[in-house]
Amino acid sequence: MKNIIVGQSGGPTAVINSSVAGVYKKAKELGINKVYGMVYGIEGFINENIIDLDEYLNNNENYELLKRTPSAFLGSCRYKLPKIEGNEEVYEKIFTLLDKYEIDALFYIGGNDSMDTIKMLSDYAKEHNKQQKFIGIPKTIDNDLPITDHCPGYGSAAKYIATSLKEIIRDNSSFDKTRQTICIVEIMGRHAGWLTAAAALAKDDNCEGVDAIYLPEVDFNLDEFIKNIKDLITKKSSIIIAVSEGIKTSDGKFVCELNDSERTTDAFGHKQLSGCASTLANIVSKETGIKTRAIEFSTLQRAATHLASLTDINEAELVGIKAVEAANVGKTGMMITIERNNTKEYSISTNIYDIHNIANIEKKIPLEWINTKENQMNKEFLNYARPLIQGELLPIFKNGVPTHLIRK
Amino acid sequence: MKNIIVGQSGGPTAVINSSVAGVYKKAKELGINKVYGMVYGIEGFINENIIDLDEYLNNNENYELLKRTPSAFLGSCRYKLPKIEGNEEVYEKIFTLLDKYEIDALFYIGGNDSMDTIKMLSDYAKEHNKQQKFIGIPKTIDNDLPITDHCPGYGSAAKYIATSLKEIIRDNSSFDKTRQTICIVEIMGRHAGWLTAAAALAKDDNCEGVDAIYLPEVDFNLDEFIKNIKDLITKKSSIIIAVSEGIKTSDGKFVCELNDSERTTDAFGHKQLSGCASTLANIVSKETGIKTRAIEFSTLQRAATHLASLTDINEAELVGIKAVEAANVGKTGMMITIERNNTKEYSISTNIYDIHNIANIEKKIPLEWINTKENQMNKEFLNYARPLIQGELLPIFKNGVPTHLIRK
Repeated sequence: MKNIIVGQSGGPTAVINSSVAGVYKKAKELGINKVYGMVYGIEGFINENIIDLDEYLNNNENYELLKRTPSAFLGSCRYKLPKIEGNEEVYEKIFTLLDKYEIDALFYIGGNDSMDTIKMLSDYAKEHNKQQKFIGIPKTIDNDLPITDHCPGYGSAAKYIATSLKEIIRDNSSFDKTRQTICIVEIMGRHAGWLTAAAALAKDDNCEGVDAIYLPEVDFNLDEFIKNIKDLITKKSSIIIAVSEGIKTSDGKFVCELNDSERTTDAFGHKQLSGCASTLANIVSKETGIKTRAIEFSTLQRAATHLASLTDINEAELVGIKAVEAANVGKTGMMITIERNNTKEYSISTNIYDIHNIANIEKKIPLEWINTKENQMNKEFLNYARPLIQGELLPIFKNGVPTHLIRK
Repeated sequence: MKNIIVGQSGGPTAVINSSVAGVYKKAKELGINKVYGMVYGIEGFINENIIDLDEYLNNNENYELLKRTPSAFLGSCRYKLPKIEGNEEVYEKIFTLLDKYEIDALFYIGGNDSMDTIKMLSDYAKEHNKQQKFIGIPKTIDNDLPITDHCPGYGSAAKYIATSLKEIIRDNSSFDKTRQTICIVEIMGRHAGWLTAAAALAKDDNCEGVDAIYLPEVDFNLDEFIKNIKDLITKKSSIIIAVSEGIKTSDGKFVCELNDSERTTDAFGHKQLSGCASTLANIVSKETGIKTRAIEFSTLQRAATHLASLTDINEAELVGIKAVEAANVGKTGMMITIERNNTKEYSISTNIYDIHNIANIEKKIPLEWINTKENQMNKEFLNYARPLIQGELLPIFKNGVPTHLIRK
């Protein structure tokens, strides 16, 4: 391969830049000439908005800084390629640019919507006898990609959620029973509850954990929810409930949807959700008369690189490395996957998988991992998630705050 | 002094436990026999709810863990002692317990409401010829205590705010101008803007900083606010605004009271109690049609000990130490204050000050530190605040999350 290009797509994560780092590192090891970055994903590339990563990453200090930089260093997009038939000019534009810059492989870091881009480009290349390789690199805090054991980005978000909940639980139990407080914490995840389930990781020998976890995998019943809260307030002074932004009633209505009809939809047709905790907090406050607080982790849960999981960072870097290796041996139309080894200590291997069986498919939490009776997670989930939040890569602090690598 | 007691009061902070640590450390150095802790502040003490700190702190590991534990380890209260006249039985109860446990000095860690407790108890002791000493130890994320240069708790909250805003700013600039986003971040501080002003610390050579800061010290004008936003959206793709929860219009109305009922009544017919950021986000979204997000740091900003400032932790410990020294030389009815030395490098000294001139008084940001024209902070504020967020005391991670010291 002469030159390659890497892009980022979809919602950013705390470690998405480590995959860019991995791609760059392996490419340089292989003697690849130019490693380009798409600025703002495939949409930016179509507009020839690219940078040469040598300008940023050819020293170890910046490389280390990139791994500690949240959000998409290259810029991201939510652009979905149109179907090939009737839109050939879009694809021709892309392949003309690939030829112009002598790019032999394109790497795209993203979630299931973004993997569609790899699918479409590799399909087009196949149909039109193009030689470029297209490899997907998994990334999503939502952890909802199929086939792969888990997705880079998830472990760090889970670590942020568990750590912040431990701190919120301590805060909420400052006062005695005369100042009972119910705290409802909203966590991201439209359809899959992986992130919200990470609330279960707050429980350990020095923390009682959250009192209930409500996931989108299980129909939400408002009456039962209120009954549970009313039961909890007879037993405890501090009550903490974790809810997914995506919880729905059995008739398919999002709890937050009832609250605000004017929300916009994004380019992929997703409704933009928020406010489910505050909707529930208002209902609970009215029903119980007890002080109730809604907390949303909002974008912090995907941007808090200062609390990233080292395991996650290393794996994000690794899937970048493996993507370059795959393209280098001629693979295309594939995504790198992570496989958990059957070892006593947590360890992983990587594999590659046909993108057609990955793009646009969502993986949910197995129902048997959920204790629906007590609204908690079973040990299968804890065993699955705990290794993913291990280790820390400390920020490089300057003037009291973490420093980041940014584009000029 | 034979025995002493320490209590925590008011809203917790990330470093309030370091003052308990300081009191314990100095007391043991002085050979004091028992260091008791009030469980749930003076209210708990009145109910004889106390613990012996030797049970927790007589080894270095736990001492270090306490300094890394958020919220009030001892438990807090929001109890204000009644006026002495006509309520003598409350005071007699307290002094009977002090005698029973042979307590010669009482230390109370809190903000301006809590300092009232020290004032009342020392006044009562003086009037009734009691020998016990009463010393206040400053603590508040709000930083609104008078006389002292700043308050332990503020630096860590400011560090959390600056760090999280840097991460939010990165996150919010993931996409290009076709996906413009306005993000309104709500920060604590009902009457004083110290915490919100800390948003200015997000700006450095690798971060553009927030686009505007709205403080309670300055009357909030909704029309000017919208005009500013509309101006910003002609210039920038990512817009981040920091607002204090306490911003008020010139007629004294909190912004969160500006909600129009149509937007804030949910499907259940409940009036939505929303914060000022979400009120403003709704207004901005309606006025501009641009995607707008509200983020509240909520209790995280006072509980995020994992990101505490080492300067703040050291100073919180120091004021605990100095309080014991003061009582030991016979001082009473005083609060420990922090004075900034007139040195090139930041350094402090401590002093003590008559509690009557401190309790119930709020210190606001000097207006000349505020650039009201550009809604930013002047360099006087930056020079004041930047030293307070320096240094880190890393959590002790266990199983991927910070571990805390909790009461049995």
